[in-house]
Amino acid sequence: MRLLVANPNTTQGVTDRIARVARAACAPGTEIVAVTAGFGAEYIATRAEAVLGAHATLDLLANHAQGCDAAVVAAFADPGLGAARELLSIPVVGMAEASMLTACMLGRRFAILTFAVALEPWYQECVEYNGLAGRCAGIFCLDEPFQAITSVAEEKAQRLVALAGRAIAAGADVIILGGAPLAGLAFDLAEQVAVPMVDAVAAAVRQAETLAALRPRKPVAGTFRRPGPKSITGISPALAGLFKG
Amino acid sequence: MRLLVANPNTTQGVTDRIARVARAACAPGTEIVAVTAGFGAEYIATRAEAVLGAHATLDLLANHAQGCDAAVVAAFADPGLGAARELLSIPVVGMAEASMLTACMLGRRFAILTFAVALEPWYQECVEYNGLAGRCAGIFCLDEPFQAITSVAEEKAQRLVALAGRAIAAGADVIILGGAPLAGLAFDLAEQVAVPMVDAVAAAVRQAETLAALRPRKPVAGTFRRPGPKSITGISPALAGLFKG
Amino acid sequence: MRLLVANPNTTQGVTDRIARVARAACAPGTEIVAVTAGFGAEYIATRAEAVLGAHATLDLLANHAQGCDAAVVAAFADPGLGAARELLSIPVVGMAEASMLTACMLGRRFAILTFAVALEPWYQECVEYNGLAGRCAGIFCLDEPFQAITSVAEEKAQRLVALAGRAIAAGADVIILGGAPLAGLAFDLAEQVAVPMVDAVAAAVRQAETLAALRPRKPVAGTFRRPGPKSITGISPALAGLFKG
Amino acid sequence: MRLLVANPNTTQGVTDRIARVARAACAPGTEIVAVTAGFGAEYIATRAEAVLGAHATLDLLANHAQGCDAAVVAAFADPGLGAARELLSIPVVGMAEASMLTACMLGRRFAILTFAVALEPWYQECVEYNGLAGRCAGIFCLDEPFQAITSVAEEKAQRLVALAGRAIAAGADVIILGGAPLAGLAFDLAEQVAVPMVDAVAAAVRQAETLAALRPRKPVAGTFRRPGPKSITGISPALAGLFKG
Amino acid sequence: MRLLVANPNTTQGVTDRIARVARAACAPGTEIVAVTAGFGAEYIATRAEAVLGAHATLDLLANHAQGCDAAVVAAFADPGLGAARELLSIPVVGMAEASMLTACMLGRRFAILTFAVALEPWYQECVEYNGLAGRCAGIFCLDEPFQAITSVAEEKAQRLVALAGRAIAAGADVIILGGAPLAGLAFDLAEQVAVPMVDAVAAAVRQAETLAALRPRKPVAGTFRRPGPKSITGISPALAGLFKG
Amino acid sequence: MRLLVANPNTTQGVTDRIARVARAACAPGTEIVAVTAGFGAEYIATRAEAVLGAHATLDLLANHAQGCDAAVVAAFADPGLGAARELLSIPVVGMAEASMLTACMLGRRFAILTFAVALEPWYQECVEYNGLAGRCAGIFCLDEPFQAITSVAEEKAQRLVALAGRAIAAGADVIILGGAPLAGLAFDLAEQVAVPMVDAVAAAVRQAETLAALRPRKPVAGTFRRPGPKSITGISPALAGLFKG
Repeated sequence: MRLLVANPNTTQGVTDRIARVARAACAPGTEIVAVTAGFGAEYIATRAEAVLGAHATLDLLANHAQGCDAAVVAAFADPGLGAARELLSIPVVGMAEASMLTACMLGRRFAILTFAVALEPWYQECVEYNGLAGRCAGIFCLDEPFQAITSVAEEKAQRLVALAGRAIAAGADVIILGGAPLAGLAFDLAEQVAVPMVDAVAAAVRQAETLAALRPRKPVAGTFRRPGPKSITGISPALAGLFKG
Repeated sequence: MRLLVANPNTTQGVTDRIARVARAACAPGTEIVAVTAGFGAEYIATRAEAVLGAHATLDLLANHAQGCDAAVVAAFADPGLGAARELLSIPVVGMAEASMLTACMLGRRFAILTFAVALEPWYQECVEYNGLAGRCAGIFCLDEPFQAITSVAEEKAQRLVALAGRAIAAGADVIILGGAPLAGLAFDLAEQVAVPMVDAVAAAVRQAETLAALRPRKPVAGTFRRPGPKSITGISPALAGLFKG
Repeated sequence: MRLLVANPNTTQGVTDRIARVARAACAPGTEIVAVTAGFGAEYIATRAEAVLGAHATLDLLANHAQGCDAAVVAAFADPGLGAARELLSIPVVGMAEASMLTACMLGRRFAILTFAVALEPWYQECVEYNGLAGRCAGIFCLDEPFQAITSVAEEKAQRLVALAGRAIAAGADVIILGGAPLAGLAFDLAEQVAVPMVDAVAAAVRQAETLAALRPRKPVAGTFRRPGPKSITGISPALAGLFKG
Repeated sequence: MRLLVANPNTTQGVTDRIARVARAACAPGTEIVAVTAGFGAEYIATRAEAVLGAHATLDLLANHAQGCDAAVVAAFADPGLGAARELLSIPVVGMAEASMLTACMLGRRFAILTFAVALEPWYQECVEYNGLAGRCAGIFCLDEPFQAITSVAEEKAQRLVALAGRAIAAGADVIILGGAPLAGLAFDLAEQVAVPMVDAVAAAVRQAETLAALRPRKPVAGTFRRPGPKSITGISPALAGLFKG
Repeated sequence: MRLLVANPNTTQGVTDRIARVARAACAPGTEIVAVTAGFGAEYIATRAEAVLGAHATLDLLANHAQGCDAAVVAAFADPGLGAARELLSIPVVGMAEASMLTACMLGRRFAILTFAVALEPWYQECVEYNGLAGRCAGIFCLDEPFQAITSVAEEKAQRLVALAGRAIAAGADVIILGGAPLAGLAFDLAEQVAVPMVDAVAAAVRQAETLAALRPRKPVAGTFRRPGPKSITGISPALAGLFKG
Repeated sequence: MRLLVANPNTTQGVTDRIARVARAACAPGTEIVAVTAGFGAEYIATRAEAVLGAHATLDLLANHAQGCDAAVVAAFADPGLGAARELLSIPVVGMAEASMLTACMLGRRFAILTFAVALEPWYQECVEYNGLAGRCAGIFCLDEPFQAITSVAEEKAQRLVALAGRAIAAGADVIILGGAPLAGLAFDLAEQVAVPMVDAVAAAVRQAETLAALRPRKPVAGTFRRPGPKSITGISPALAGLFKG
């Protein structure tokens, strides 16, 4: 199986981290194709940056989905996910979506932990969009500067363990570490936290494999059927081609 | 007062219609500046097209908001609205948001009527995003082809009157005509429908004026404070400038 | 335009304050007609007092709406609003409703601040009645005596600024100052609070103007059509006349 | 035990019917004191009439609660119920509230049936106010004229049996006959309907007895503590006295 | 009237306490038949123990309901209640259900207090199952060991009074003491708590009497009609007989 | 990997079908251990039968989970799932849960289709328990007798295709075929239905593999920690052992 992992952030170092975790987490025989956004923010943290990220996600999928069995939108909060699901014929999953749904099988309420308060509103809207507010014990954010987006995971590991304790006290049965820059950390910290942790990249990769294995048909009805033909201008040829079908 | 009306669709004829209705509906002394998306879909109907529309909205605001007192995102379902509210210092309202909130002051439940079933999923997500599903009696769509997006309002007027009757029977106290191509029609049909109708462009223009008149400060806290500085690449200079603040 | 501003409280001094703020906030050319309840509580704070206030609201509208283009129920939590909307042919808005809906265009979640804990249950029921609990970050009340209802705004101004800080920390993007006795204070304190503030009287006046400008028809269907004829006894002749239509 | 049954409608014939059903349904030894509103509508059907009914309810309780162990607000949708609960020291229940909560112990979802579509919006708001929309399969109304409010029960009995069938098909496990003019009918029709029926007067009387038997204290905290002292003018001496405590 | 009170816990001492409170709380002339689970947990605190308790409830009802007018499932959170309601022809109520619905007539939001944190998840699911999360101000649990399940009420009485104060500060209008081992305590502590308290056994007994008095028919439609005939094996003869009808 | 698939129904033929589909759907190298309930109903359709099924599930897990990496509760609506998750150290998933969460990654709203109306209430409660009512377009049931539970899938295949059409018209983006007796049918009918279909056994098997691959720790905090030690009597030695830990 061949999985496209599309990072809507422009930082190659984050893509490298994602790819490493994806390769460690995937099933034997799965090939990971990891690509980085060609435009937008170094890392997406706000609604405004997510608008660019959604466009970048579609661009990446248009350029690289060919020959893949499924795709992962590799930014937590899943910019462009619904749009991608309309346009593509292969399954597409988001890191936030996949980790929240996986967490629902491990506990009654999950908490999302991340490294910067700036991410909270966007994550909150993502929880609500997925209709999972009733399963969410809260979004818990560190509120302090960090040195570099590519090493924030290691820098803040112990602070996140402490934050997990607060989330558990607030009712969380499961902890999701949100944000692609934290990929892999859930495995490293598993022994230090009293409830199961979900690594968002690993969950997304496994869920993408699951969807591909179930071989769902591309809908020709319902809200994820392909958009009808329409005049689209001013975008990359690859993406324009994707709209043409 | 100077209002920017940004059409995220690329069809100039729709912008012309919006501008005409906006000028008829605004308060004396308000100047309407109407602009058309530089890229994207001729008219937005799906999540995928809305991703492009959101980017186009930000681009339009970056290029034209200077000197305006408020702005209107002139596509029903409001692509890029939250992002615009983060980035701009002037109030920004969306056509869907403004018409739904206005409708809430005219009745207990509103219905949204539009001319194509393709629009339904995107509108539905917009209602839910605004937390107004409990105030919505349904989204009612015509399910038949139309001749041209610039004349669909006149072509389908009587079909929409009949559809309004169905919406009222389903519990609607107020009818919103959704979709920029229907701008102005609510006034023309008012006598033929048994409950109040809301014209989405007129509502958005009046609400933008209201917000401007109330002179709200740009937040420096909360979820609509400006995003912090970040490296953003590959977008238009004007929009990049908007991200810089 | 001529706006009736009906204060369901019996304190003339509160009406005077409301009228002053309404005149400062309205559009050029709008005339404000401010009237005071003929019976009921000096200021409404509980469900029991609101029952009297709702009746007083209808009485005021019956006596004074003639010749007006729209009306405002000028007590936060809007006693009698739905009833007024059934009986009258002109638009009627409530202070709570108008300020909450306005706040929804300025942020994701609003908080309501007021000067007495006694008001909290009634306000909470009003938020829920409007279906806006999901948009409300909380109702925050001072819990301490005040000297006089006509000067509580000035007396508690700085305490409310501090309370706004707590509301923002709890997730509020916008602050509504609730309660007619606080009319005008949102403008005075705007610079001291980190998010936009909404003055409830100003919002209600502007929204009443907006509705009047949109010229909605009086419904003859739906839940706000006029009640059918019925024998009504024991109330003021003016109000009895309003029920006769 | 002595139960006050307060009819906020002004029709004595409806009070007579309510009293007859109450006396048949109460426990041995319970005395029913049934009283009729001194002002307001012959029967309440809309929000506007309910405003008068709420005031009338308080007036009745102020004049007649003395010496009673509990009180019933005997109009479906419970005008003035929350206010009464603040002011009185004895338990007060409403017909709608009592029958809905009783129905919750007989099935998963209840339906409310009544004899006139005019009642639907007010009933719907009552269901929502009680937080029971998730337990309600719908409000089903006959849509046809009736001859007299005092004999509508007998006139429409068989039409209501047919309507019950529709409600069951829509998911109702229990049928509530709403509206004081239908008092008693649920017992008469029990054999003709495939699910349990709840008579709203009988349920209210039994629930009032239950509350009285449990001897709950009058709260001195929480949202149903008595309102603090305040200047109240222009109302009946008895009701003014109730506000004084 | 003859009421079956079925304790799904295996501790006879808890049944004795329940029976004592039930006999003190029931109407004159009601006979209480109290029985104890033949298998399962000494007291149910978790989902796993509740699975056994649900089976034990059905077994008790199968063996003892004959000749009774109504039945009470006497463990808070009501194991097996829905199943019992399908199988039996007499009304069945649960302690949690009855006390929550009773509390809804005494206040806007209730809190549930209990003696062990282990009970919280199960109680929380019960509140949600009943669709009453919007009426619940929280579940408050003591977090400390106790000496014996049969005397935990007396041991923790004053700790529960303090906990009630916290619940009231968090918005509770009414306090429910949850857990059969606390039966009777609400009456003893009534004077020490500022809002009404509901004893869950007393409420369940009175509600069972109320349902019996209303004489609801056994449904032959809806979701509580009897299950159709089916091959059931490996259970007690009495329970197998109940499935046979 | 070794997966326990526990059928809480007592019909071996259904277990055989489940096992066949599970083996076709699992990843290479996964071993399926399929076991059948030792007591209870031939197939579970109601709340009462599910009480027995929950107990039977725990019994099966107690006897067979040893040496397995994860377990599946193989009856749609997942009897005993939460309890199993408390007691076991390996991941446990339910057919309903797994298929609904999987469906959420394929569309906005799913519909559940099944072969008998008797199943609807239990399925509905399962959807609500999972907090997914907002993602569910409805439960659609055939309403007609069938010949045998082991061949109902083949017998009703074309009726279910027609029913899927109705579900799609009602807003479903994805179709779940619910009920273990329908296992495998989703794959056979995929070409005949316009949206993706989810086979509940296949989804559960793949999700169980996913959870096992993620290696979540057994919680020692939160609501799925193991119950504390307690006296449990009257159940099978294996299950008693599971409670002892």
